[in-house]
Amino acid sequence: SRSIRLAVIPGDGIGPEVVAEGLKVLSAVLPSDVKLETREYDLGARRWHATGETLPDAELAALAQHDAILLGAVGDPSVPSGVLERGLLLKLRFAFDHYVNLRPARLHPHAATPLAGRPDIDFVVVREGTEGPYTGNGGSLRTGTPHEVATEVSVNTALGVERVVRDAYERAQARPRRKLTLVHKNNVLVHAGRLWTSIFERVGTEYPEVTTDYLHVDAATIFLVTDPGRFDVIVTDNLFGDILTDLAAAVTGGIGLAASGNINPTGAFPSMFEPVHGSAPDIAGTGTADPTATVLSVALLLRHLGYEAEAARVEAAVAADLAERDGVRRSTAATGDALAVRVATVGD
Amino acid sequence: SRSIRLAVIPGDGIGPEVVAEGLKVLSAVLPSDVKLETREYDLGARRWHATGETLPDAELAALAQHDAILLGAVGDPSVPSGVLERGLLLKLRFAFDHYVNLRPARLHPHAATPLAGRPDIDFVVVREGTEGPYTGNGGSLRTGTPHEVATEVSVNTALGVERVVRDAYERAQARPRRKLTLVHKNNVLVHAGRLWTSIFERVGTEYPEVTTDYLHVDAATIFLVTDPGRFDVIVTDNLFGDILTDLAAAVTGGIGLAASGNINPTGAFPSMFEPVHGSAPDIAGTGTADPTATVLSVALLLRHLGYEAEAARVEAAVAADLAERDGVRRSTAATGDALAVRVATVGD
Ligand SMILES: CC(C)[C@H](C(=O)O)[C@@H](O)C(=O)O
Ligand SMILES: CC(C)[C@H](C(=O)O)[C@@H](O)C(=O)O
Repeated sequence: SRSIRLAVIPGDGIGPEVVAEGLKVLSAVLPSDVKLETREYDLGARRWHATGETLPDAELAALAQHDAILLGAVGDPSVPSGVLERGLLLKLRFAFDHYVNLRPARLHPHAATPLAGRPDIDFVVVREGTEGPYTGNGGSLRTGTPHEVATEVSVNTALGVERVVRDAYERAQARPRRKLTLVHKNNVLVHAGRLWTSIFERVGTEYPEVTTDYLHVDAATIFLVTDPGRFDVIVTDNLFGDILTDLAAAVTGGIGLAASGNINPTGAFPSMFEPVHGSAPDIAGTGTADPTATVLSVALLLRHLGYEAEAARVEAAVAADLAERDGVRRSTAATGDALAVRVATVGD
Repeated sequence: SRSIRLAVIPGDGIGPEVVAEGLKVLSAVLPSDVKLETREYDLGARRWHATGETLPDAELAALAQHDAILLGAVGDPSVPSGVLERGLLLKLRFAFDHYVNLRPARLHPHAATPLAGRPDIDFVVVREGTEGPYTGNGGSLRTGTPHEVATEVSVNTALGVERVVRDAYERAQARPRRKLTLVHKNNVLVHAGRLWTSIFERVGTEYPEVTTDYLHVDAATIFLVTDPGRFDVIVTDNLFGDILTDLAAAVTGGIGLAASGNINPTGAFPSMFEPVHGSAPDIAGTGTADPTATVLSVALLLRHLGYEAEAARVEAAVAADLAERDGVRRSTAATGDALAVRVATVGD
């Protein structure tokens, strides 16, 4: 009999609230012969305040034993900026070598968009997840004095760029439009830009059916609002991907709907799935957070683990639910309940 | 009698076409007692192909003697990416210490916007212009091999951050809403983030009437499309400013309308004014480029040189022209002509 050993990191703010609904839907959609074993990890602001720990080695080792990780959100105003992001979230992405940060962007016919004319939007961003400006390299000299110099070093390796570019070509190749856009800023960041551009071109020769395109990151943000239909698959570095995917979320229904997967395609370590949104401390505890992004992240998790039919059911349930949401305000739990009911019936 | 010694760098692609119209409007708006002396500098792709030069020292020294510089756009597909950007445009910004890169974003009632509901938009971005990830620091090791490591170093100094932050507070203080938003990514780029955030807070104590706000760059892009009315003045680093201002341009009528000033507030070197858009080689020579961004850059130039009434006339002429553009397609020269006629009569 089959089983999924799932690690759950509810985290801070609305994290625990949306994760509860994600698990509700996951349980509802799994076939009865699949045993779901979850183990919750108490990591985040509470733990840090209590013990000073962000991610102890023993817990990192324990997490490595799971098939996958579901994470809510981390970060709280009571914790200095960066402590939990660097010490927990990014530490997990780096330790488990999540080099494909996968972020689909699709505008559902019934989702809200700030864009006039409701363009067709259906693309996926393959964001590099383990290097670039996110490495934490850099430091400061004469800190706190009028002579301070603070640096941030973006580190880009041929290994790191090639594997994510190759993954993006594979995804583009498998989609009907077969189009891949590299986003960078190679006219200013010339060292990293040359590496990204040359690998993008070289690997492209192996995918003659994929049409390619290059955009500077600033131009890409323009097209995301004036002509998002032009995008199919985007591959980009860690920081540009962070920016583009929040913007992509904004134009496809808001971050309440944006899912993501931090994927290690080799399977050497568990992949981690999380909504793109943060911990939203301002609405935590009000029961108003939309759990849909977490539920869609569960769909990515199911697909990653080979449960394609179940992943499709979850996505279909969300689509059907969105079509009936118009103006209705529901609690976090009510949305989770509705989706859990739907996954059992949708498509039947 | 008064005079303006203006350096003109038409540059590449549509650069010369839009600069011609900018000069047309400048001549038309200047009072008859102001002598306009222009000197054109042949810099850009043609020069580079002919001589291999991007910005020779003698020309840099000559440029330094002017009161201001008007630049069209540089860059061409026939020149390797970065050569003209780094060797000419950024070299000018750095050599003349243009630490305030000023980019207003205002949605005119008659300008096109991709946003539904046409929100009120009226903010200005104060982008740092002389450091951050734009320094060119970094390099590559084992270049071109499977073991290549390419780095980009963002360099941030207390001097550089404080002077631009202070400039932004001054601008916020002088505006009716008195609101200043710092945009950074201080939860990931913790070294530079701490420097920016601490200086932002410390300088803020000198401006008790200015309301302050902090946003991560990813969240800022969301608000730029879902709630752009919340912004008054934004201060941010060189790269984030590049990205945000293209997005800001997209939501306020497109890059055909976005003006910018590369300002050295000390007056030690000439400031440089240029449209935010690039050289657009695809439409160069067709006579269809919109010169309005250049004309609005001329308004910023006039204001910088103390010709406030003339700057306001140019802006009023553009506003009046926009109100009558609806659907009409005009050539670059026809738009310049129309604006030149208007500056002579508007407000009379
Ligand atoms: C919380 C933060 C560190 C994170 C990131 O920048 O990657 C978030 O914005 C995201 O996009 O997942
Ligand atoms: C051409 C390029 C170097 C430049 C920049 O990145 O600053 C441009 O995008 C701009 O915004 O002025």
